[in-house]
Amino acid sequence: MIRIIGFDADDTLWHNENIFERAQERYRRLLAKYHPAAEVDVALFATEMRNFKRYGYGVKGFMLSTVETAIELTKGEISAREIREIIALGQEMLAHPVELLPDVAAVVPALARDYRLLLITKGDLHHQESKIAASGLAAHFSAVEILSEKDGAAYERVLRRHGVALAEFVMVGNSLKSDILPVLALGGAGVHIPYHILWQHEHAEPVPQDTPRFRCIERLAELPALLSGL
Amino acid sequence: MIRIIGFDADDTLWHNENIFERAQERYRRLLAKYHPAAEVDVALFATEMRNFKRYGYGVKGFMLSTVETAIELTKGEISAREIREIIALGQEMLAHPVELLPDVAAVVPALARDYRLLLITKGDLHHQESKIAASGLAAHFSAVEILSEKDGAAYERVLRRHGVALAEFVMVGNSLKSDILPVLALGGAGVHIPYHILWQHEHAEPVPQDTPRFRCIERLAELPALLSGL
Repeated sequence: MIRIIGFDADDTLWHNENIFERAQERYRRLLAKYHPAAEVDVALFATEMRNFKRYGYGVKGFMLSTVETAIELTKGEISAREIREIIALGQEMLAHPVELLPDVAAVVPALARDYRLLLITKGDLHHQESKIAASGLAAHFSAVEILSEKDGAAYERVLRRHGVALAEFVMVGNSLKSDILPVLALGGAGVHIPYHILWQHEHAEPVPQDTPRFRCIERLAELPALLSGL
Repeated sequence: MIRIIGFDADDTLWHNENIFERAQERYRRLLAKYHPAAEVDVALFATEMRNFKRYGYGVKGFMLSTVETAIELTKGEISAREIREIIALGQEMLAHPVELLPDVAAVVPALARDYRLLLITKGDLHHQESKIAASGLAAHFSAVEILSEKDGAAYERVLRRHGVALAEFVMVGNSLKSDILPVLALGGAGVHIPYHILWQHEHAEPVPQDTPRFRCIERLAELPALLSGL
């Protein structure tokens, strides 16, 4: 019987990837006079992956990779003023207001009355804390855990710290790789709510729909009714 | 009677500010042909403070501020290749090995036998975790807390989470502002071990030497003997 619900944050409670997507669209336009737009995304993703061990997740690492990629793709021809514009793109991402996803403002407070809610997110500590504060949702969560990676070891640590039994736990999120698969592997339950954009790095094979303790739903409003069956 | 010791990490357990200082020296040299070196530090610090709410602590924010300042100081004249060198400076900082401060390798394991040790640091989640792993010290700490800010509210949250009574707690660190003053104000004890470089942002007025539950020492080896008097 589920007693504790873990929620992912980015693209589960509020929009995130659409902010990256809009920034990348502007980034492609900015580089268009130097380089074919179609190749910009491929080069940027390659830089991000090369820098991943260095920077970890988050907008600041993304910003540094956009500057590095722009210099590389233009063979050093890009001007400092254009680099300043690229930095400004990232600064706008950091300043972007938090926009809750559908149903979140109603469902999260309602669930908080009957369940213990944990916010389990990954990424940049400073930016995640700012978004949680701006979301207005913090008071509904008994704890917030910001992790540098969401793998099995990280979930085990968090659940042990909060004295959570896996039989009583469900994780809700948009990423099979980060939110669902590690929790199912440990023996917990998982509810997948896909977001319309998935960052390439989060790609994972689909989970068979008849997997025990796993559900896939389209929107958060479907969650409360299915908890008793997990 | 002290039972739990909180340790700051950067410039308390291992060198940190000297890495920033060496990077800034190279940064000044890189900009020397555009701008008088003496003004570079002032301009960089101003950019860092302007960006502080956006980026928080850490090397990635520092890197973004060095690029922005270089463009500003050169009025956009700096070349993309030089900007790439500035980014490389920051990447070297992130790759820098962790160098323990004197006495740390002996004193921390010895204290861990008689006290519960907490590592309480602030900054970038990903980079701090990498440094803790590389330090070889992680096993001596019963918990690691990486905070976005070290103020009274943050210490209260951490100590509550770990069930620590202030009468039994001492915080050890190099920053009066972040390690000592907030803990003394809550009623805990504080041991200050100055590092030879203090980042301007961490500046604080000295604590009178006769303040109860406060000591200032020159090196960590002095810590074990004074704990019983706190």
